[in-house]
Amino acid sequence: MKVMDIGEFGLIAHIAEIIKKRSSKTSYAWNHLCLGIGDDAAAWSTSRAINLATTDIMIEEVHFDLKYTGWYDLGWKSIASNLSDIAAMGGVPLYALVSLAFPGDVEVENITALYQGMVGVADNFQVVISGGNISFSKQVIISITLLGKAAGNKLLTRAFARQGDYVAITGYPGLSAAGYEVLRKKLDIRPNARKIMLDTHLRPLPRINEARILLKNGVRSAIDTSDGLVADLTHICEASRVSAAIYETNLPLHPFLNEYFPEKSLEFALTGGEDYELLFTAGKAVMDRIKNRLSCPVTIIGEIMSGTPGEVKVFDKHGKSINLENKGWDHYRSRL
Amino acid sequence: MKVMDIGEFGLIAHIAEIIKKRSSKTSYAWNHLCLGIGDDAAAWSTSRAINLATTDIMIEEVHFDLKYTGWYDLGWKSIASNLSDIAAMGGVPLYALVSLAFPGDVEVENITALYQGMVGVADNFQVVISGGNISFSKQVIISITLLGKAAGNKLLTRAFARQGDYVAITGYPGLSAAGYEVLRKKLDIRPNARKIMLDTHLRPLPRINEARILLKNGVRSAIDTSDGLVADLTHICEASRVSAAIYETNLPLHPFLNEYFPEKSLEFALTGGEDYELLFTAGKAVMDRIKNRLSCPVTIIGEIMSGTPGEVKVFDKHGKSINLENKGWDHYRSRL
Repeated sequence: MKVMDIGEFGLIAHIAEIIKKRSSKTSYAWNHLCLGIGDDAAAWSTSRAINLATTDIMIEEVHFDLKYTGWYDLGWKSIASNLSDIAAMGGVPLYALVSLAFPGDVEVENITALYQGMVGVADNFQVVISGGNISFSKQVIISITLLGKAAGNKLLTRAFARQGDYVAITGYPGLSAAGYEVLRKKLDIRPNARKIMLDTHLRPLPRINEARILLKNGVRSAIDTSDGLVADLTHICEASRVSAAIYETNLPLHPFLNEYFPEKSLEFALTGGEDYELLFTAGKAVMDRIKNRLSCPVTIIGEIMSGTPGEVKVFDKHGKSINLENKGWDHYRSRL
Repeated sequence: MKVMDIGEFGLIAHIAEIIKKRSSKTSYAWNHLCLGIGDDAAAWSTSRAINLATTDIMIEEVHFDLKYTGWYDLGWKSIASNLSDIAAMGGVPLYALVSLAFPGDVEVENITALYQGMVGVADNFQVVISGGNISFSKQVIISITLLGKAAGNKLLTRAFARQGDYVAITGYPGLSAAGYEVLRKKLDIRPNARKIMLDTHLRPLPRINEARILLKNGVRSAIDTSDGLVADLTHICEASRVSAAIYETNLPLHPFLNEYFPEKSLEFALTGGEDYELLFTAGKAVMDRIKNRLSCPVTIIGEIMSGTPGEVKVFDKHGKSINLENKGWDHYRSRL
């Protein structure tokens, strides 16, 4: 069945059903929702709190290709990238608004899969899709806004890195770029390697819970790795008016990354982007405390220094500064 | 200067400057903003309140054509259409998140004009642009999320129309469709007629203040006319499980609409869309009270009845039901 067969408003009713059926109804978000899908705006009540809002857009042929990404995965990733921004603030995600545009000859079952993917990841964090908007367009466009609140009125921001802090990262940077390469080049690799790379690329699980543990234990400065490790550390350094050094020998390169992409593993890890890991800074005492409290891998990869604000240098095993051609994704410069 | 000359992050810094310079800094929104543009999410604090969120997307060649719409007007309208959704809830708008995508060869001065248009309308209601996102795309895409709160914890919703209510509308429906026709067909009309039609189409001023007066005076059910009068009244009737009748003789057709579009004035008024007026229902006592308290025109155009839920009939001066070919905008069916 095509979307044009049921029309815009038939589709909205269909989507509301998917969300009602699949979302966990006992959550804070559901309990505080006054008006969800079906009116001019979503409405909810909160206690006195710091509210958070973030937005991200995914455009066909720019951010994804339906040749490599299924509709379920697309829905998952579109919500996950926004969840990751709330994680980067140490916040609690609550509501998602979905603005969706696509051609009329899309199958309704694809839109169903898209929303199932959205609810699939949202449900992990008790997030409710509470509104949105549907339009015609030639390409598929998914614009998500995620609303949340601070946990205990404290936030992780980009502006609190201090000289002498260590720089640490969760998980294994570069696996998402590797997953994209596997899809794009149709590489035939072992199932367990394939799974971890594709899951990181297509169904990332944002570090919402880990970020709150960081915040509770004294971390104040963090970002999620969406643009790439070096680019995102640069964002922290700019906001904090500091510089940073990363040491190649400290980078947690996943064994599969070294095995399948020995030539590219460093590039993937430093500039790959879309890993949705947490990159954060803190002093030694805080770092020591954290290590035992997170269930995911955490690796100290460098340190914060005084020096040219915003400058990030990567040193190889001989102590030589590596010249990075492409530090990460800039939506305009990356296309020059 | 092209956007690709300054890059994504240069552009974000530029936009942050525009917003800081132009926004009124003394507003509630500014005073409660903890973190604006420049981190992973926007953060603000509110007192215990019902929060509102709405989102709308504008896509080049679908929602606008840069041949007919300048960048300033585009910015204005993109925020205005969202403000109108908050108006339709009787709410107070607070923060806007802007997700923007466009090609790299766009002139930076066009993006400047776009944000000046956004701030231009936002400033009327002390709304702050507090975040967003920028991407490459082949066409211009503007996705806005507007956040606000209920005034006094009451809301106007679509679901409160009751049998026996009158149906009323602010302003003059159809002027926006007329403005689009003037632009599209390059019609040569008198300057004062041209101004009112183009202003309605390109720089609508949403009925935020009027909606709050409605709410204060006992109105409970309203919608903004974005899809078209009949289509939007249908949304109210569906949500309220009632039907409605509109009487052609009661419709407030603007004199310029009759003068320049005698054949099309009725069609424009009933199905034109994008007027961003308020369409609302209330009993006689409330309607009487309101008329003297609003500074804009208000006209009773019909009534709410029992009968097939969601059905809206329009009766001509002979009491005959008018057959409307196209009841308003459905993003998929309108293209069949």
